[in-house]
Amino acid sequence: MNALGRVSIVGAGPGDPELMTVRGLARVRAADVLVYDRLVDPSLLDEAPPHAERVFAGKARGFAALDQRQIEALLIARALAGKHVVRLKGGDPYVFGRGGEEVAALVAAGIAVEIVPGVTSATAVPASAGIPVTHRELASSLTIVTGHEDPAKPEAAVDWEWLAASRGTVVILMGLGQLDGICARLIAGGRSPQTPAAAIAGGTRPDQRVVSASLATLAAAVADAQLVAPTLVVVGDVVRFRDLLAPSALTGAAVAGTTVNDSRRETGPGAYARIGRTPSDHTELTHGHDG
Amino acid sequence: MNALGRVSIVGAGPGDPELMTVRGLARVRAADVLVYDRLVDPSLLDEAPPHAERVFAGKARGFAALDQRQIEALLIARALAGKHVVRLKGGDPYVFGRGGEEVAALVAAGIAVEIVPGVTSATAVPASAGIPVTHRELASSLTIVTGHEDPAKPEAAVDWEWLAASRGTVVILMGLGQLDGICARLIAGGRSPQTPAAAIAGGTRPDQRVVSASLATLAAAVADAQLVAPTLVVVGDVVRFRDLLAPSALTGAAVAGTTVNDSRRETGPGAYARIGRTPSDHTELTHGHDG
Repeated sequence: MNALGRVSIVGAGPGDPELMTVRGLARVRAADVLVYDRLVDPSLLDEAPPHAERVFAGKARGFAALDQRQIEALLIARALAGKHVVRLKGGDPYVFGRGGEEVAALVAAGIAVEIVPGVTSATAVPASAGIPVTHRELASSLTIVTGHEDPAKPEAAVDWEWLAASRGTVVILMGLGQLDGICARLIAGGRSPQTPAAAIAGGTRPDQRVVSASLATLAAAVADAQLVAPTLVVVGDVVRFRDLLAPSALTGAAVAGTTVNDSRRETGPGAYARIGRTPSDHTELTHGHDG
Repeated sequence: MNALGRVSIVGAGPGDPELMTVRGLARVRAADVLVYDRLVDPSLLDEAPPHAERVFAGKARGFAALDQRQIEALLIARALAGKHVVRLKGGDPYVFGRGGEEVAALVAAGIAVEIVPGVTSATAVPASAGIPVTHRELASSLTIVTGHEDPAKPEAAVDWEWLAASRGTVVILMGLGQLDGICARLIAGGRSPQTPAAAIAGGTRPDQRVVSASLATLAAAVADAQLVAPTLVVVGDVVRFRDLLAPSALTGAAVAGTTVNDSRRETGPGAYARIGRTPSDHTELTHGHDG
């Protein structure tokens, strides 16, 4: 159809495929080539046309199928061959998604490119666990960082000392591997050890699990619960809000104690809070995860 | 249909109606009652069934159609009457959207409630202006605050001194009214006056306008350009990335100088970057804003 192809860099959202945008889904359905990451829900791949080439570019257990330069070269090559390429990335392409690097490479190659924003995990995964990332009286700022580097490194890209001085909500993406060091660094920098904190694995997915504790006890609680990646960590008074939504799921004070549960059953997106009477026809509105 | 109703609190996204989520659109299409804010695109109201009651709850020019307690009472009353109520809010309900307050009121009243996250303006509006809120080497944190309070107030909820010490990206929602004071406060707190900054009015909409300048000169440039609300402000080295995407639109160095333009023509969502050749069949994929 096109003499020259183009690339749509699309945010697939936090995991639950219904949290993709309308435009993002339209782009997938019009794709000649779909280049996707590990965290993209498999059901979205089925939305591409039968003829579409599907290329897995993500990392699994530390092994990258393609490195960043190879991904960029692939996008350019397919666009130059006249294809409509859809680059499908978890969350939002510009929130620690390396979308900017791909745009830069495509622009340098003279390829037409668009960004289709997505729902970022940084906000939707806490929401799925019953935690609003901001709330009047509880948080007047939201700061998002990644936790994949060792916070003890002096040349760390993240300014952990500054982050520890936040009075607001802190969300750490990919924080599982360095969780012990991250919590210690935030406490050393001045954040109270009693600050409510939660770790959410598989956020917005059917297998979502939530561990809530204090900043001082979170790493041990997460280790006990054997959470696996992807795990997002949220630190701040807003975590207390979780008690309000799912009191029956908590075995003690959320701040002092530790609770582990599959929170999606109570408060996940698509799951009405199990407070009061839940409409019996509710499951028709969901993906059937909760029925 | 239901003996007891329910409420879906839905994020409508940053403005462009195609940036609504698939689930959010499904909820609107199933609504008996639609309670919507000012920043919700009118085309989304047409997606509700003909029988649906439509209630405007937003603020226009400082005048609130309904105050927060009245909104909550309305949601509860309609749900108790057995209706499926959709509360449609701009952006994401939990990112400075008062979604938590509405959830708390509904839970207290025993109403079943769900949150459907949305694409937050804090990430999508900068993207629409060609600015990635994070980028390797340029920003390792993203902090989001609101700018509606006077930053000179000693009891300010936002910790401006802490925010000024950020080395990463700062996004200020609703920052137009206090822009002069905000920029001064960030500079007084230690952020370089030469830090690249941009103000984006009507982000992701057809009438989007962008003013880019330095932190020291942004407020004057915005006043000159007579931007109107809603305007989002982004501060940080990532603003430089804009030059890469739309060099022809810039009349000088983006950091030192000031540029005003309708950036959506170059780099908005749904608009392929006007770099190289733009496919002639592109407009069929968009809302027709750019054709």
